[in-house]
Amino acid sequence: MVPTQERSYRALTVDTVRSAVEQLQYFEDVEQLQVSEIGDGNLNYVFLLEEPATGKSLIVKQALPYAKVVGESWPLTLDRAKIEYQSLQKAAEVVPNLVPVVYHHDMEMAYTVMEDLSSHEILRSALINGNQYPNLGKDIGTYTAQTLFHTSDFYLHPFTKKALVKDFLNPELCKITEDLVFTDPFFDHDTNEISDEIRPFVTQFWQDEELKREAAKLKLQFLTEAEALLHGDLHSGSIFVTANSTKVIDPEFAFVGPIGFDLGSFLANLLLNYLSQEAHMKEKADLQVFRDFLSDTWKQTWETFATQFLELCKTKGHFTFSSIKGVAEEFVDKVWRDTLGFAGCEMVRRTIGLAQVADLNTIEDAPVQIDLKQKALTSGAALIKNRNEIKGINAFLSWIQEL
Amino acid sequence: MVPTQERSYRALTVDTVRSAVEQLQYFEDVEQLQVSEIGDGNLNYVFLLEEPATGKSLIVKQALPYAKVVGESWPLTLDRAKIEYQSLQKAAEVVPNLVPVVYHHDMEMAYTVMEDLSSHEILRSALINGNQYPNLGKDIGTYTAQTLFHTSDFYLHPFTKKALVKDFLNPELCKITEDLVFTDPFFDHDTNEISDEIRPFVTQFWQDEELKREAAKLKLQFLTEAEALLHGDLHSGSIFVTANSTKVIDPEFAFVGPIGFDLGSFLANLLLNYLSQEAHMKEKADLQVFRDFLSDTWKQTWETFATQFLELCKTKGHFTFSSIKGVAEEFVDKVWRDTLGFAGCEMVRRTIGLAQVADLNTIEDAPVQIDLKQKALTSGAALIKNRNEIKGINAFLSWIQEL
Repeated sequence: MVPTQERSYRALTVDTVRSAVEQLQYFEDVEQLQVSEIGDGNLNYVFLLEEPATGKSLIVKQALPYAKVVGESWPLTLDRAKIEYQSLQKAAEVVPNLVPVVYHHDMEMAYTVMEDLSSHEILRSALINGNQYPNLGKDIGTYTAQTLFHTSDFYLHPFTKKALVKDFLNPELCKITEDLVFTDPFFDHDTNEISDEIRPFVTQFWQDEELKREAAKLKLQFLTEAEALLHGDLHSGSIFVTANSTKVIDPEFAFVGPIGFDLGSFLANLLLNYLSQEAHMKEKADLQVFRDFLSDTWKQTWETFATQFLELCKTKGHFTFSSIKGVAEEFVDKVWRDTLGFAGCEMVRRTIGLAQVADLNTIEDAPVQIDLKQKALTSGAALIKNRNEIKGINAFLSWIQEL
Repeated sequence: MVPTQERSYRALTVDTVRSAVEQLQYFEDVEQLQVSEIGDGNLNYVFLLEEPATGKSLIVKQALPYAKVVGESWPLTLDRAKIEYQSLQKAAEVVPNLVPVVYHHDMEMAYTVMEDLSSHEILRSALINGNQYPNLGKDIGTYTAQTLFHTSDFYLHPFTKKALVKDFLNPELCKITEDLVFTDPFFDHDTNEISDEIRPFVTQFWQDEELKREAAKLKLQFLTEAEALLHGDLHSGSIFVTANSTKVIDPEFAFVGPIGFDLGSFLANLLLNYLSQEAHMKEKADLQVFRDFLSDTWKQTWETFATQFLELCKTKGHFTFSSIKGVAEEFVDKVWRDTLGFAGCEMVRRTIGLAQVADLNTIEDAPVQIDLKQKALTSGAALIKNRNEIKGINAFLSWIQEL
C-alpha cells in the first residue's frame, strides 16, 4: 500500500481551501468567502470559511504530515484525519448534539469539513477565566456513557467489536500517549519540561518505586485492554462550550482501549484547574464557589456516566452475563478505579511532560506556580497509588477537599 | 475481498493430496506414497503420506469449510488454516523443538504440509493410560514462557504488537471459545451435554450468582485483554508426547489474548485427568504416584513459565518499566490469578459443555462418572471464585490435595 503521504496529498491554503467546500453547495458563492487559518498549527491546519452575505460558516480541518511542535522532523501519519472523521461519525450516531456536525471528509487530502463552533469557547480557557457551565458534567457523563457503551462488548457483537479494534488500531498516535503520558514523565527523559526550580522535587518524585510499579500497570492496561472506542484525548482543550452547549472535538487519538482513560483525562484536567485556581482567583469566597462547581461537575460526570452505562447494559445490552446481578456494577467499579489511576498519570504528564497546561503555566507568581505544580505531582501520584482505596464518588470528593 | 471459500478451494482426497507435496521434492517418488486419512474429521482432513522405500513421511492437514461436529450446517472460516500456519511459524522462531516442522502452506487450498508425529502419542490418551512424561512440565512451561513473552508488550515494539493483534483477530474461532467456554456452560443452553442423572446437580450449580459474576469477569478479560499471542486451545489433546519429546500442535484458535488462558487450559486438563484417575487407576498406591506426577508436572510448568518469563523480561525486555523492581513479578502474579480462573472455566465446560473429555467420559461405572463430574464442576467453580485467594504454587498444591 502506498503510504498516505505519497498519494495526492497537498497542503491547503487560504486560496485553495474554497475548492474543498464547493461541491457541498452549502455556500451561495464560494468566491465571496472570507477565509482565515485559525489553528494553533502544531498538527493541523484549521480554516474558517465565512460567507458575509448569508452569515454561514464552516471549518475545514486538514492534518499536516508532521508535528510542527518539533519542526518538520517528526512525521505523523495523515491517517489520523480519517480516524478523527470516523470517530466523530460514530459519536454522532449516539450523541449528535455533543459533537460537531461533519459535512465531508477527503481521505487523500486528509481534511474534514465540519460545523463552525466559533460561537463556543475552549473549555480550558473558559475554566481558567472562572466561567461555570452547569450542564458540563451531565454532558460529558452522557458523552462518555453513550460512546463507550455502544462500542464495548456490553453492546457489540464480538465480530463487530473485533472489526472496530482493527479499524482504530491507530499505532502512531497511541505511541505518543504511551510515551508522553505513560513513560517519559516517570523518568528523566528529554521530552520532559522541568524548570530548574522544580527539578529537585521531581528528582525525589522519580525515586518512588511504588508509584512507578503502579504507573507500569496502568501503561500495560492502556496497551492491552480493548474495552471500547475511546476519544483518546478528552482533556479540557478538546471540549468546546457555551452556556448551554457542549461539543467534544478532536478525537484523532481514538482507539479501542480502557474506558477509564477517557474519564480519567477529563477528571485530571478538572483537577489541574481546581489546583491552579488558588492563583487565578483572588477572592477566597469566589475560589470556594468555583471549586465547588468543579467538584460538582465531576460528581455529575461520574454519576451520569455510571447511571447511563448501567441503564444501557440493562436495556440495550447484548452481553449474556449482564442479566446477572452485579456484573455491570462491578465493571463500572473497575472503570472507577482505572479512571482515578489514569487521571493521576494525566496530572503528572501535564505538569512535567511535553504537553503542559495553561492552567498551571500561566500562573505568573513563580513560587506559587512551583508550589502548585508540586501539589499536582503529589495529587497525581496519590491517585495512581491509591486508586483502589478511594472507593466511590463521595470518598473522592472528601479526598479533593484535602488537596 | 472474495471470501476464502469462494476461491479455488477444493477438498483434498487420498489421490489428489500427492500433488500437495510434489513440489517439495521431499519424497523420491510421490507415485509410490501410501496415503491414509487419519483425522478425526470434525474440522480438518489429516492425511498421512508415507514412502516405504525411504521410510520418510509427512502430514498434510487441510481445513474443512465447515465444522462436521454438527453436520455441514456450521460453516467455519478456512482462514484458521493460515492462522495455524502463522502461529506455528512464530512458535518455531523461539521453541523450534516444541512444535512440528512446517514445510509448506497453501493459503487458497487451506492446507499445511508438516512433520509426521506418528511416533508421538496424544497426551490425553497417554495420561488416561497412566503414562508419565518427566519433561512435560518443563516443556510446556518453556513453550508458554517463550511464545507468550515474545509476543507481549514486554518484548514487542507497540507497532509490531498492534500489527500482531490485527493479523490474529480470528473472530470466528474466538467466538467458539466465547460461547462454548465462557457462556453456554453457565446457562441452560442447548449446546451443553448434560445427562439426566447429573442435571439436578447442574441446575443447582447454575444458581450460584457469585460464580456467574466471576465467570463474567473472565469472559470480559478474554474479550478485551490483548496481552500476547496465545495458542488458544492448549489442552491435552493439542499436545503430542514421547518419552523425551513434547510437541504442541493445532494452534488454529490463536489470537492475542490474556496469557493465563493458555496456562489455564493446560492446568484444567491436568486436573480433569487427576480427578478421573480415581476411576482409571485401580491400585491406590499407583493412583497416588500418578497424581504426584500430575501435581509435579503443573508445579514444573508454572515454575518454568514464571522463571523464564521473568528472566526474559530482564534480559530481552523492551518495556521501560521492566527495570523497576516488582513490575514483571506483579504481572506474573496477575497471570497466576488469571490462570486459575481460566482453568476453572475450562474444567466446567469440559464437564458439561459441547466438547467434553475422554478422561471423564470413558469412565464406565456410571455413578462414579457422575460423582467425578460433580467434583470437576465443584473444583472448577472453586478455582473461578477463589482465584485471588489461592496465592502461589504451594497454596495451590495444598488445594489439590483436598480435592
